[in-house]
Amino acid sequence: MGSTTDNWQDIAKQKQQDIKAAIPSKWVIPDEKLPSESQADVSNFLSESGLFTNREIEIVSTDALKTLGYLSKGTWKSEDVTLAYCKAAAAAHQLTNCLSEIFFDEAIAQAKECDDYLQKHGRPKGPFHGFPISIKDNFNIIGKPSTIGIALLANTPATYNSTIVDLILQAGAVLYVKTNVPTAVMLGETVNNVTGRTLNPLNRSLTSGGSSGGESALIAFGGSRIGVGSDIGENTIFTREAVYELTCYAIGGSLRIPAACTGIFTIRPSAGRFPHCRARSGLAGQEAVMSVNGPLAKTLEEIVFYSKTIIDQKPWLHDPKCLPIPWRTVEPKRRLKLAVMWNDGLVMPTPPVARALRETVEKLKASGHELVDWEPTGHKEARDLLRRMFIADGAKSIRKLLEPTGEPFRPEMGSYEKSQEMGVYEMWQLQVERSDLQKSYLDHWNSVEELDGILCPTSPYSSVEHGKLEYGGYTGAYNLLDYSAVSFPCGIKADEKVDAAYSGHNPLSEFDVQVQGSCES
Amino acid sequence: MGSTTDNWQDIAKQKQQDIKAAIPSKWVIPDEKLPSESQADVSNFLSESGLFTNREIEIVSTDALKTLGYLSKGTWKSEDVTLAYCKAAAAAHQLTNCLSEIFFDEAIAQAKECDDYLQKHGRPKGPFHGFPISIKDNFNIIGKPSTIGIALLANTPATYNSTIVDLILQAGAVLYVKTNVPTAVMLGETVNNVTGRTLNPLNRSLTSGGSSGGESALIAFGGSRIGVGSDIGENTIFTREAVYELTCYAIGGSLRIPAACTGIFTIRPSAGRFPHCRARSGLAGQEAVMSVNGPLAKTLEEIVFYSKTIIDQKPWLHDPKCLPIPWRTVEPKRRLKLAVMWNDGLVMPTPPVARALRETVEKLKASGHELVDWEPTGHKEARDLLRRMFIADGAKSIRKLLEPTGEPFRPEMGSYEKSQEMGVYEMWQLQVERSDLQKSYLDHWNSVEELDGILCPTSPYSSVEHGKLEYGGYTGAYNLLDYSAVSFPCGIKADEKVDAAYSGHNPLSEFDVQVQGSCES
Repeated sequence: MGSTTDNWQDIAKQKQQDIKAAIPSKWVIPDEKLPSESQADVSNFLSESGLFTNREIEIVSTDALKTLGYLSKGTWKSEDVTLAYCKAAAAAHQLTNCLSEIFFDEAIAQAKECDDYLQKHGRPKGPFHGFPISIKDNFNIIGKPSTIGIALLANTPATYNSTIVDLILQAGAVLYVKTNVPTAVMLGETVNNVTGRTLNPLNRSLTSGGSSGGESALIAFGGSRIGVGSDIGENTIFTREAVYELTCYAIGGSLRIPAACTGIFTIRPSAGRFPHCRARSGLAGQEAVMSVNGPLAKTLEEIVFYSKTIIDQKPWLHDPKCLPIPWRTVEPKRRLKLAVMWNDGLVMPTPPVARALRETVEKLKASGHELVDWEPTGHKEARDLLRRMFIADGAKSIRKLLEPTGEPFRPEMGSYEKSQEMGVYEMWQLQVERSDLQKSYLDHWNSVEELDGILCPTSPYSSVEHGKLEYGGYTGAYNLLDYSAVSFPCGIKADEKVDAAYSGHNPLSEFDVQVQGSCES
Repeated sequence: MGSTTDNWQDIAKQKQQDIKAAIPSKWVIPDEKLPSESQADVSNFLSESGLFTNREIEIVSTDALKTLGYLSKGTWKSEDVTLAYCKAAAAAHQLTNCLSEIFFDEAIAQAKECDDYLQKHGRPKGPFHGFPISIKDNFNIIGKPSTIGIALLANTPATYNSTIVDLILQAGAVLYVKTNVPTAVMLGETVNNVTGRTLNPLNRSLTSGGSSGGESALIAFGGSRIGVGSDIGENTIFTREAVYELTCYAIGGSLRIPAACTGIFTIRPSAGRFPHCRARSGLAGQEAVMSVNGPLAKTLEEIVFYSKTIIDQKPWLHDPKCLPIPWRTVEPKRRLKLAVMWNDGLVMPTPPVARALRETVEKLKASGHELVDWEPTGHKEARDLLRRMFIADGAKSIRKLLEPTGEPFRPEMGSYEKSQEMGVYEMWQLQVERSDLQKSYLDHWNSVEELDGILCPTSPYSSVEHGKLEYGGYTGAYNLLDYSAVSFPCGIKADEKVDAAYSGHNPLSEFDVQVQGSCES
């Protein structure tokens, strides 16, 4: 932890300058090419700005599996691939503020080593040979700070790698950036006092979600193909076994918070599947709801490939909390039985999300799958428990990180700032309630014969304006239950004309009024 | 929970009478056959008292696998087998006070149903068809109290089964007794204010260990072949993967507390292997160190058979905390590499235990296995953490169960009685320390190339006089680490003459002085 006694504003200002300064001047977007602040959609910048060569565009547009095929044969050089991703990431940061650490020089040196290795040994270093993978800020990389949006931590280089980082490096990947997170990694948007707010490249007036919103913005923009995020508050379609049988159950649904806000894929595995050892947390030691990590990517194939690569390295030999379950290939069922949760009983999905769910259900039916309705019992209880668990220490953990530099709580963190620490006895009672809820939810699942998964919205929002993402009940319930979940884009975009027809329903709760209101502007 | 406002003494007196009264008068040991109180060893009572027929002795002396073979073919009737075990258990209770609930009539009715089922369907009900399995008191069985040594709970029948009980019943087993535990299931001996103290049938002046000491006494006596216990403080030889690959790693070592005190086998699996859902705990909601359950038996084959039977029922479909890992048969290695922990750096094993370890090491070497020394780093820290975690609620959980009937804390529970509740922030810091310790212990393991397991004493004691079992550091460390562990008898018995030669060493710690002193009387 930093020994600095500077005040947080100075640290933040310097940190933002340092990040910018790490972008080579040749990659600084010239003023005449810079989209105006009012230009919302910057997702086509790489292909339309004229700043990128066709070769660079080809590289960052090619999916990871194909690129890895070229890299492993030496058809493409890691140096070229890495350069292209660095340049694209630099542009992404300038337009969306998605990065928290930039280390392009080291990445390029690492890429050259990969190229030399292949040349010398005639074989790739590993399944990720020479491929750049972006890393969320809360994962430790030796020599880089893990700021997690807190001034005190902004200048203290990590002295060890997170286990997931070790495995990614062992598989031959190149590291080039760390991506932005909200304060203490604990908000559904990506905003903090140090590195600021990340914007959604599809519409910069909207959030890219959180807490992996730096990753989702970077990937959606085209500055990364595979990024590592973490999850203590997101998901969508999930199945009890999806994490273990990934190839089978990774099917249909709506969107998960940062993935959903930017139209990409992700998997939230159950705890113990991917190693989460030695990651930095804003609530260190909080275990009532386990934090997990997983990949974000533009295609399901990349998610599967990443997952298999991690599991094949036997993470349980390196992380004491990892489970000794090897990768298991399963034969997908031809006809799935899915339960549709149209709403969580508290907040209706907003019209575009509801439409996406309806259309997905229709497509699944048309493909021969069986769809039944899911009764959302226990979701209110799950939401209440989760909220109380996160503030169980009265925000002491976060306060101890903020106070030395005089950093204030973000306005979004009012519930933390106002919280009172509870005693361990009360915490144990919450854990009893959570275990009971897990059991009754499982019984509910088992009451539907041969159920393969639940299909539901990731969130009531497709995305939402900055500062307005206030409801995370859809996702949080499955964190509390520790179910694995895949979130995927389903090809639907919000459309004011179409969706207006579907607005207006009797509110399910006070949250519902608030959520629907936040999307009407 | 009971609504009674009786005082604890009245409840305890009545409970003890009720248990006795549940023994049919024909099975009450006549005065002239009752061993004198000064007779320490009652382990041969079944064969030597003349109260049991040869047939009855044959039944309870036959291992479970062979008996199940007979039962499944109808060669033996479940009714006969059940009657023999009920009668033996009745004797065990009268001589060692090992039972907390007796329900022979229901058991016999259940046995008859099994016999009828086989007759009618021509096939057994399941792998445990018609076989009596004893259940530790903290597992819920519908209609029976789960007293866990607390007066308030002594008369409240459970309204649901623990998941492990459901699975055992589904596999066709017969339930006939629940076995005694210490207050709140939280001591290394089996003693409480309600059902009293369980004695070791091998030497009634010594403890049968705890908290599964009712089980160990019952099995060692011959009143059960397979019993279900639970573990939040025991083990011996363990391997990181033993629980997952049971058949491979279940080899060599010393003894675990109740198993060790009575010379039988057990496995403490890692959390999530066997279902522990809906068990009663004295510290409900305590999860920093997970409670687990496992079988106790006289042979390793019975342990393996039980374990496979449970896993084959896919407990993860019924317990949300269970892991979806099917039974995996592995080919045992011909030459194992084992690290020997001669002591834990705090307390030397007493002379008979040290001798047992030495002789076991020699036997393993002679069989071609590779033995290296294990440095016991982290054991002091593990012990300290465990102690602080168990009293983190300031014993509020236990106090709330004792107070309504005016029941006092047992004198052995002084550390609970004097404890102060800590806040959640402090608890989170303990959890951080524990995770760090788990990681450094795993790194230590990995520093020994190709290590298959650790061999160590279960406990410094072979057994010890009642009230003197005060050190549980050997076992507790592996609960904190959540390693799977098998404890097994190694054929060595304490021998004053032989062992005296080995007493006397420089104490490793203040505990060491205390432990060695407790065994010199």
